[in-house]
Amino acid sequence: MQLSKFTRISLLGSTGSIGLQTLDIVENHQEHLQVVALCAGSNSLEKLTAQIIQFKPDLVCVPTEEDRKKLIELLGARRPWKLDIVTGEAGLIAAASLSSCDLVVTGVVGAVGIKPTWQAVRAGKNIALANKETLVAAGSVIMSEAHKNGVKIIPVDSEHSAIFQSLQGYSNDDIDYLWLTGSGGPFRTWSKEMMEGATKSDALKHPNWSMGPKITIDSATMMNKGLEIIEARWLFNLSAKKIKVLVHPQSILHSAVEYKDGSIVGQMGVPDMRLPIHYALFYPERVPSSRVPRLDLVKLGSLTFEPPDYDKFPCLLMAKEVAESDTTLPCVLNAANEVIVDSFLKDLLPFKQIPRLLEAVLSLHKPVKNPDLDDIFEADAWARQEAFRLVSAPISSI
Amino acid sequence: MQLSKFTRISLLGSTGSIGLQTLDIVENHQEHLQVVALCAGSNSLEKLTAQIIQFKPDLVCVPTEEDRKKLIELLGARRPWKLDIVTGEAGLIAAASLSSCDLVVTGVVGAVGIKPTWQAVRAGKNIALANKETLVAAGSVIMSEAHKNGVKIIPVDSEHSAIFQSLQGYSNDDIDYLWLTGSGGPFRTWSKEMMEGATKSDALKHPNWSMGPKITIDSATMMNKGLEIIEARWLFNLSAKKIKVLVHPQSILHSAVEYKDGSIVGQMGVPDMRLPIHYALFYPERVPSSRVPRLDLVKLGSLTFEPPDYDKFPCLLMAKEVAESDTTLPCVLNAANEVIVDSFLKDLLPFKQIPRLLEAVLSLHKPVKNPDLDDIFEADAWARQEAFRLVSAPISSI
Repeated sequence: MQLSKFTRISLLGSTGSIGLQTLDIVENHQEHLQVVALCAGSNSLEKLTAQIIQFKPDLVCVPTEEDRKKLIELLGARRPWKLDIVTGEAGLIAAASLSSCDLVVTGVVGAVGIKPTWQAVRAGKNIALANKETLVAAGSVIMSEAHKNGVKIIPVDSEHSAIFQSLQGYSNDDIDYLWLTGSGGPFRTWSKEMMEGATKSDALKHPNWSMGPKITIDSATMMNKGLEIIEARWLFNLSAKKIKVLVHPQSILHSAVEYKDGSIVGQMGVPDMRLPIHYALFYPERVPSSRVPRLDLVKLGSLTFEPPDYDKFPCLLMAKEVAESDTTLPCVLNAANEVIVDSFLKDLLPFKQIPRLLEAVLSLHKPVKNPDLDDIFEADAWARQEAFRLVSAPISSI
Repeated sequence: MQLSKFTRISLLGSTGSIGLQTLDIVENHQEHLQVVALCAGSNSLEKLTAQIIQFKPDLVCVPTEEDRKKLIELLGARRPWKLDIVTGEAGLIAAASLSSCDLVVTGVVGAVGIKPTWQAVRAGKNIALANKETLVAAGSVIMSEAHKNGVKIIPVDSEHSAIFQSLQGYSNDDIDYLWLTGSGGPFRTWSKEMMEGATKSDALKHPNWSMGPKITIDSATMMNKGLEIIEARWLFNLSAKKIKVLVHPQSILHSAVEYKDGSIVGQMGVPDMRLPIHYALFYPERVPSSRVPRLDLVKLGSLTFEPPDYDKFPCLLMAKEVAESDTTLPCVLNAANEVIVDSFLKDLLPFKQIPRLLEAVLSLHKPVKNPDLDDIFEADAWARQEAFRLVSAPISSI
């Protein structure tokens, strides 16, 4: 197959779930895709070493100077002589705006993705956006900068990729509603009372998707779908009122666009992130893949749909309410959620406390209207501090 | 809403199912749509009279001189002074190539649609194609002429409209497979033995769609889906091997495109022809409608899918086998099917005889390779004659 382009990729978060699947695709399309930068966290330096040796990037970024030394040691004589190893936030930004890069895959989890994405957009790099927190916290700022620089933001979230694919040939002016589908997570069939006693291991059992732990917990609270409403709002430049949530336990219809004429166009596939990643890496071309698993429509059997239960999933309701706001509230929601979910994963609080703590942080925040990037980082820092404080406080005091 | 165009329509088959629904849409969008020609059959002159008075076309076509006289009488003093009334095939062609017309809606049923569609294409008119027989019998001829004249063929069949919509932004080169969905008709859950005794009233009970009698019988035999394979083959310029049939009893997913990368994009809606008609009339724009009913995804409940049973539906198998052929065989299949179904509707033969008679006509035909329009009309006439002969013959002699 003749492709019209060759794409050089900076991969932020190369050892996480999105990163590994991105490299799986790149490995299978070396004639069209090349990795020029890899960035990973402190606890996966050995995996990163193997990736460096296989993909031979120009630049690698690790969090600290100590990580850098460890990495040099791990690479030893196998270190490619032209490899730059950089560190910290400045290093992430260097990777995201590397001159040899065409496309930045933002596979990092959390608000750490905001600054490098911002700098990548300013440097005119197209973005394969897997870091939804960037748009949740800083959507208006990032999208207006992308527009100014003629940068394409191609979603990697399966839901937003489905909408993006279903919208080809049309524009957001043609949309009446977006339908964001979600499996409903591990607690879809649990009663509200049962959920009060949910354990970490219960919450980590996602029925369909294999993802990182933070996003899996966000699926259990349905905060994930809430953050996706906010992400979709900015990505497709729509009022949040036009974005509806549809529970679809089989995760086959990945989302859909309801056009103004009543026609609904949606995208289907097996629940596997390699498809939206593959699509984003090759967009706008459709390229065959031996790595993306196929959906067999004949074997589908039955697809079911139900409305979301906002009473059982207060995090979803909170996000939906905050979604319309042009203030720092979505940023605070996201930052506080990161701290609270991290604390839950460290066994510092029970599952049922997640929405309560979130609500407490939101209620204490003084929102800033039409925030700039500084306002957003300030709100982010404030929310983290408040969330830490509340996580550490005795439950009765909240 | 600001639309970029005003469309003047010639409507062939104005008093049939597609015609009535087209006029329902036109009535609701008089600021953007206008009817300039109406064509109808002998047995609906009163309905046509009312349509003429309401829509004030420039031209009207009826089958015979006698119909013309009746129509003039029915119109009486209400006849718009500038109205031309023409007759027969020449009249249909005049309507299809009227200089004031931008778009021809081919809502007539059967091979009668071929010649006017051909002439409309030669006159550079865009086609809203609801007459699938045109492409089944003369696909290669019509499509190459459309290509030559820069004419858009916009499908009105719900399945092909779904594929057309799902393909926006991409081209047929990007397709791996098309999935044509079908309800399975009234006999989906019947055994092969039960179907042997099916009556006309059983066959006319379509579970989801309200359509004309001929197409309803074609749904009962699943010949409709077979003809759609052939139609899709020409419309999307694909090998028939790339077109799969999927039984989907709820008729909500109207069909889908499986792209080369494994992603499946499909279109959904309530089973109501006004949506694909509306889409075709306004293509490529998406225009709000108060007439097109909405699908509520939350209330969908369950969508099911199953493979087609070729043993139970021999007409589907026959069409599938003939679909790949670049000969007069698809034309013969279609013409013979028209005669046989018409005879069934006139109670001249039992349901189970439909596939047997069809097979008999097909087996007697000497196919012409890469036929031109004359070969096609000759094969069409031959097939009708053979089918009449076999319908009239004692069953034992077939």
